[in-house]
Amino acid sequence: MASEFELINFLFEPLSRGLSPNEIGIGDDGAVLNVPENHQLVVVTDTLVSGVHFPENTAAYDVAWKAVAVNLSDLAAMGAQPGFYSLALTIPENNQVWLNGFAKGLEDIGSFYQIPLVGGDTTNGPLTITVTMQGWVSTGKAIRRSGAKEGDLVCVTNYIGNGALGLMVALNTLPESVKGLISEADSQYLLDALNLPQPQLDLSSSLKEFANSAIDISDGLLADLGHILEESNKLIAPKDGKVLGAQINLEFIPLSNAARIYIENTGHWPAILAGGDDYQLCFTIAPDKLNLAQEMSGKLGVKITAIGKVVSLDRVNESSSTSNKPSLMDITLLSHGKKIDVGEAKGYMHF
Amino acid sequence: MASEFELINFLFEPLSRGLSPNEIGIGDDGAVLNVPENHQLVVVTDTLVSGVHFPENTAAYDVAWKAVAVNLSDLAAMGAQPGFYSLALTIPENNQVWLNGFAKGLEDIGSFYQIPLVGGDTTNGPLTITVTMQGWVSTGKAIRRSGAKEGDLVCVTNYIGNGALGLMVALNTLPESVKGLISEADSQYLLDALNLPQPQLDLSSSLKEFANSAIDISDGLLADLGHILEESNKLIAPKDGKVLGAQINLEFIPLSNAARIYIENTGHWPAILAGGDDYQLCFTIAPDKLNLAQEMSGKLGVKITAIGKVVSLDRVNESSSTSNKPSLMDITLLSHGKKIDVGEAKGYMHF
Repeated sequence: MASEFELINFLFEPLSRGLSPNEIGIGDDGAVLNVPENHQLVVVTDTLVSGVHFPENTAAYDVAWKAVAVNLSDLAAMGAQPGFYSLALTIPENNQVWLNGFAKGLEDIGSFYQIPLVGGDTTNGPLTITVTMQGWVSTGKAIRRSGAKEGDLVCVTNYIGNGALGLMVALNTLPESVKGLISEADSQYLLDALNLPQPQLDLSSSLKEFANSAIDISDGLLADLGHILEESNKLIAPKDGKVLGAQINLEFIPLSNAARIYIENTGHWPAILAGGDDYQLCFTIAPDKLNLAQEMSGKLGVKITAIGKVVSLDRVNESSSTSNKPSLMDITLLSHGKKIDVGEAKGYMHF
Repeated sequence: MASEFELINFLFEPLSRGLSPNEIGIGDDGAVLNVPENHQLVVVTDTLVSGVHFPENTAAYDVAWKAVAVNLSDLAAMGAQPGFYSLALTIPENNQVWLNGFAKGLEDIGSFYQIPLVGGDTTNGPLTITVTMQGWVSTGKAIRRSGAKEGDLVCVTNYIGNGALGLMVALNTLPESVKGLISEADSQYLLDALNLPQPQLDLSSSLKEFANSAIDISDGLLADLGHILEESNKLIAPKDGKVLGAQINLEFIPLSNAARIYIENTGHWPAILAGGDDYQLCFTIAPDKLNLAQEMSGKLGVKITAIGKVVSLDRVNESSSTSNKPSLMDITLLSHGKKIDVGEAKGYMHF
């Protein structure tokens, strides 16, 4: 088997392209990188485990793309611009075909988003990919989860639920009633949403001009909106006797053609709202900023939909409302004004 | 099983201590961190896989300490000061006792080296720990592997081989002839060298004043010195007809009491020279800088030993000397002036 050094040098070293002459990429004990003035560093990390975060038969190219994309998505949610990333790759065997496909995936997403690989570690073990990415945000301008305000509109980008439905396509678990109705092109569209997510970086640079809070939807819309409420509630003094919750209108949830067919035939909203793997942004904005957001939406070609609003609720139970658990109980789902039971629509929990 | 969010919030959030009020640690999509002026960012990553990089029965506390320490050691080799780190933890089950021990290990090394945890990801799978660490170096002052010059002295810090012998103690594979001669205190000392390595950060801040090149010894002295030669040779034009090699005097290799007993009874140098897990620094300096290095050594209480020198060799084989393989063939071992066969003393290869 080739040594760690050979793997890294020959396959990954070309992915360091784009550094300045006084910067150091792969090939030393560490990478050395320049820092833009008047910016803060943003650091994000995400691990993908084979069989947990992607089906074991996922193409190496797609695994690489997704490992980088999910981190770009985290940067997008902070309003940060990408800098560079390092890769910790644990592989069960030195499979050159797999490694070539993986390196090609890294190369393509790296070129597309202009983000060089600056280092990493390759180890032997069950397939696990950890990407740690650094980005930059103007000092003090990062968008927090904790900034949601009563009366804010809850918005999402593009479509919700495609990743979860893509997983059903990949695992062949789509209900029979739906399978026949979805075209081959739609199936591929869902698979691409799962395997080749497109982080919302175009929007993220202007997001700080109108959003009060933001998160990327990786664990499912309800869980991730829950994180926004949870973090925002930490800034509200308990003596106020209030907590933030949200009302979401199901009929406003933006659905792709395939997702609409799925809902019309199954009525099973949890797959859409809690399936995760969307890598869209969920953010809250003051209502008077909606025009600005829609202007950006048109300019960037990113669909933005207001799906509900942040509301103020009575703090009924001191111990539950101050817990760190996602406050799913504080999200009300409405269908044409009528309250719907959240049921099993909880967010994806890694454990 | 507790959710990922609970694990991270309750157990790891306190490890974010030490950030400024305008910085963000754990609890958002990413960490946001201030940048010191006139510095470059240094990024290092190391993965530890259970059963590959540490014995499966290693205490959780020690696993945590080591996962952070090996990254600090990489920063030390670059002459960088530590900033902060993120943690990608893959664990097979939510074992609260194990997690508490692990968090205590992180807390202790974090307090000792003043390095906060700023984020991470916890996933379910075989025990794997990836730490990505950021540090800072004055712009243009990073120490490269590639700076070795003909005539440089090859130096190492403290003692070599303790980590490899510690692994023999842990796995109970020390030869019988040695076991009876090593005290219980010495056994514990070797185990500590393996499990609780002390990164050479004290020295690293002054290293740039006298070292031409540096690396930390993780793969074994010969392999890591080979990396210095390999990278330094890339800067020498092939038309020169020369490559850099090294001569190492075995009798100068600094050995602990236990390692000396091992060598006296087995004569087995590969364990010492190629065992790895030393986390000492190997660096090269111009001979006229040795006084300065020894002055620093006394001031900081770090033992520094010159064990050989960088020499110029005829470039005999174009294809082999330009390959990226560690140029072990270019390191000559001398015992009291007599050339010794490197034999099996190759560096640890992860594959």
